[in-house]
Amino acid sequence: MNYLEQLGTKARKAATALNLMLQEDKNKALKECAKSLMGAQDNILAANEIDVNAAIGNGVKSSLIDRLRLTPDRLQGMADGLLQICALPDPIGEVLSMTVRPNGLTIGKKVVPLGVIGIIYESRPNVTADAFGLCFKAGNAVILRGGSDAIHSNQAIVKALRDGLKTAGYTEDALQLIEDTSREVAKDFMRMNAYVDVLIPRGGAGLIKTVVENSTIPVIETGTGNCHVYVDEFADFDMALDIIDNAKTQRLGVCNACESLVIHEKVSRSFLPLLYDRLHAKEIEIRSDERGLSICKGFVAATEEDYATEYLDKIISLKVVESIEEAIAHINYYSTKHSEAIVTKDYEHALKFLNEIDSAAVYVNASTRFTDGNEFGFGAEIGISTQKLHARGPMGLKELTTTKYIIFGNGQIRK
Amino acid sequence: MNYLEQLGTKARKAATALNLMLQEDKNKALKECAKSLMGAQDNILAANEIDVNAAIGNGVKSSLIDRLRLTPDRLQGMADGLLQICALPDPIGEVLSMTVRPNGLTIGKKVVPLGVIGIIYESRPNVTADAFGLCFKAGNAVILRGGSDAIHSNQAIVKALRDGLKTAGYTEDALQLIEDTSREVAKDFMRMNAYVDVLIPRGGAGLIKTVVENSTIPVIETGTGNCHVYVDEFADFDMALDIIDNAKTQRLGVCNACESLVIHEKVSRSFLPLLYDRLHAKEIEIRSDERGLSICKGFVAATEEDYATEYLDKIISLKVVESIEEAIAHINYYSTKHSEAIVTKDYEHALKFLNEIDSAAVYVNASTRFTDGNEFGFGAEIGISTQKLHARGPMGLKELTTTKYIIFGNGQIRK
Repeated sequence: MNYLEQLGTKARKAATALNLMLQEDKNKALKECAKSLMGAQDNILAANEIDVNAAIGNGVKSSLIDRLRLTPDRLQGMADGLLQICALPDPIGEVLSMTVRPNGLTIGKKVVPLGVIGIIYESRPNVTADAFGLCFKAGNAVILRGGSDAIHSNQAIVKALRDGLKTAGYTEDALQLIEDTSREVAKDFMRMNAYVDVLIPRGGAGLIKTVVENSTIPVIETGTGNCHVYVDEFADFDMALDIIDNAKTQRLGVCNACESLVIHEKVSRSFLPLLYDRLHAKEIEIRSDERGLSICKGFVAATEEDYATEYLDKIISLKVVESIEEAIAHINYYSTKHSEAIVTKDYEHALKFLNEIDSAAVYVNASTRFTDGNEFGFGAEIGISTQKLHARGPMGLKELTTTKYIIFGNGQIRK
Repeated sequence: MNYLEQLGTKARKAATALNLMLQEDKNKALKECAKSLMGAQDNILAANEIDVNAAIGNGVKSSLIDRLRLTPDRLQGMADGLLQICALPDPIGEVLSMTVRPNGLTIGKKVVPLGVIGIIYESRPNVTADAFGLCFKAGNAVILRGGSDAIHSNQAIVKALRDGLKTAGYTEDALQLIEDTSREVAKDFMRMNAYVDVLIPRGGAGLIKTVVENSTIPVIETGTGNCHVYVDEFADFDMALDIIDNAKTQRLGVCNACESLVIHEKVSRSFLPLLYDRLHAKEIEIRSDERGLSICKGFVAATEEDYATEYLDKIISLKVVESIEEAIAHINYYSTKHSEAIVTKDYEHALKFLNEIDSAAVYVNASTRFTDGNEFGFGAEIGISTQKLHARGPMGLKELTTTKYIIFGNGQIRK
C-alpha cells in the first residue's frame, strides 16, 4: 500500500466514525481545535516565517507573499472561524422528504456526509483551518493538498488541529495533509476514486483547469469570475455608478469583482463620461470597443481577449450594445457563469435578464460583490461553484453533504 | 469547427431556446414526437432489422440481440413513454427558497435546466427516446452517442423524433445523435466541456469505467449494483425468504437485483437449509464461505472475487457473520453503494443498518428491487446514480435540473 493509499484508508475509517458523531461532539472537537491552534501560535508563526523567507528568496511577488504571511491576528481569525462554524446548525440527519408509496413502503431522503473530501489549494494557509472546519462539521474526513510554498505553515497548522482532535477524544485522521507536494503525487491523488468521494480545487484558473482535466474523482469546480454589470437603457445613473464602483473597486482581487461592463447605446453618450470620471478617480483603466472610444477619449482600445479576461486588477473592459438581447448574448458568451448584474428600472428587462443569463448568481440592481457564503447567510463558505452539478454559487455546509434513501418496509416485494 | 463542435454549437443554441419554453409547449412537442415515432414505424423497424441481422451475423449472444430488437409493441412502449412524460409536472422555474437579507437583498434559489446533456449508452435503442423525453421535459438539449450495434435503429428513431419537433414548430437540435460511432469520437466527446454540461453513461461496468476515467465533463455515474440482503439474528424467516427470492429471481439482469447474502451465525443452522430449498427450486447456485458450506452440502465454495461480483445471473454469494457490525463492515467493503436490505424485527438493528450502510438506498424489511424511479414515484427515470455528487439513487426529472440564485436589489452595494 503506497503513501496515498495509506492516507486514503485512514480517511475512510475516520469518515465512518464521523458519520455517526453527534453535533455536540463535533462542536466540542472544533472548540478544542481552536484552542490548540492558539496554543501552537509560536510554532505556527515560526514555520510560516520559513515559508515566507523562502518565498522572498525566490522572488515571489508581494501580493502573494501577503497571502502567505500569518500574523497573530490572522491566526486568531482562523481560530474564531472554527468557533463560528460551531454556531452553525448541523445539516446532517435531516430528512428532506418522506412519502408513503401505495404498497406501504415509506421512503425518506436523508442528509448524510459526502464521506472523504479532497481539497487542492495554493498558498493561502488560512484555507487549511477553514476547509477542515466546514468539512468536519458536515461529518466529512478531509485530505488536504496545499501548495509547496506553504508546506511548513500547513504542517504546523495541521499538527495543531490534529492535536485538538486528539485532546477532544476523536480521531485525528479526520484531517490529513499530503506532505509530499510533488506534482506526481498530486496527479495520483486526483485518481483515488476508491478513497475520495469529491475533490474541490481552490485557487487560480490554472490550478482549477489542471484538476478538471486530470481528476477521475468527481470535482466541484470553484470559480474564476469574469463578472459583468449591464447598464440598461432604463438604468438609474447614480445607482449604476455606485454599483459599478463597488463591484469593481471595493476589492480588486476577488472572484465576484466586476471585470466587464455592458452599456446600452441609448444611454452611452450621457453615461460614459460620468463613468469615466468615477472610475478614473479610482485609477481604473477602461478598455472599450469602438463605440465607447468614440464617446470617451480617456478609454483605451479593447481586444477580443479583454472580454474574456478576469483582470483581478485596476482594469475593466467595456462593450456598447444596441439591445438587451445583444447584452445577454454577449454576457452568456464571455462570462465564466459566476455573477452578473443588470441596472434597470424596467420590469420586463429585469425579468428577462434574470431568466436568460446563465450564471450562478444573477442580480437586478445590486453589486456582484454579494456572491459570498456569508453575504448569502450561510455563515461560511468553502468556495463558489461555477459548475452546474451538485452545487452552484456559494457553497456552505449543506453543499458538503449528500443524501441517501432510507426505506421502511414490512415485507414488501416487487410484483 | 469540427463535427463535434458543430453539434455542440447547435446544442448550446437549442438549450438557450429550451430554457424559455413553457410547459404546455414542451408537452405539445412531446406529443408530436410520439405521433411521429408511430408514423415512422416501418422505417424504424426496417432499420432495426439491419442492426439485428448484423448482430446475428457477428455472433452476438441472444440476450443482447433481444435488447437490440424492436417490435411494434416495443415501439408503442417508447411512444407511450413520451406521453407519460407529458403527464409529469415540469420542475423548471420553481423557486425552492427565497429569503430577505438584513440589507434588503432578496435571494431566491430557482430551478433551471442543466443545459446540454450528453448520454453515452450501449445497444438498447429504447434509451434513445426515453432519454430524450426526460431531458427535453426538463428543458435540456441532448446529444446522444449510442452503440455502433444500434446505429441504424438510433438514426431512424432520432429522425422521427426530430421530425416531430419540427412539426410542432420547435428546434430539432434539442436532439442530436453522434453518427460517427468510433471510439476516437467518443473520447473527444467526453472532453467537450465548453458545450456539454453533464455526461451520463448508461450501460455496463466497462462503459461506465471508460467514461469516468476519460471524461473531463462532470459525470453522473449510473450504477452497477452488487446489492446485499442481510438476514439478522432477529429476522422473520418467511419474510427473509420472500425478500431474498424476490430480490434475486424476480428479474436477473437488473442493477437492483440481489447478488450477495449475509447471514447472522445464530440463525444460520436453521435458516440456510430453508434458503437452499427456496433458491435451489429456482436453479440459483449459492456460493458460500466455509461456515455456510459446513451447514449446507448444496452450496458451492465462494472465492474472494465472488463477493465483489455483480452476477446478473443465476448465482448468488453468501457470507456468515458473527454480528451486525461484521455484516455492515462486509457490505460497506464489497457493495457498489447501490441498494442493500436488512431483514430484522429488532428496532436498534434496523436503525443501525439504516445509519451505517453507505449506499444510495437502504431498506428495512423490503426487497432491493424497489430502487427504481417508477417505484419511488418519480414517474420515470434516466438511471440510478451510485455517486454522491448531485444525485444519488433513482434520477427523475428533478435530477436533470440545476439551480441558480436570482437576486432582487434596489441599489445595494457591499460595505
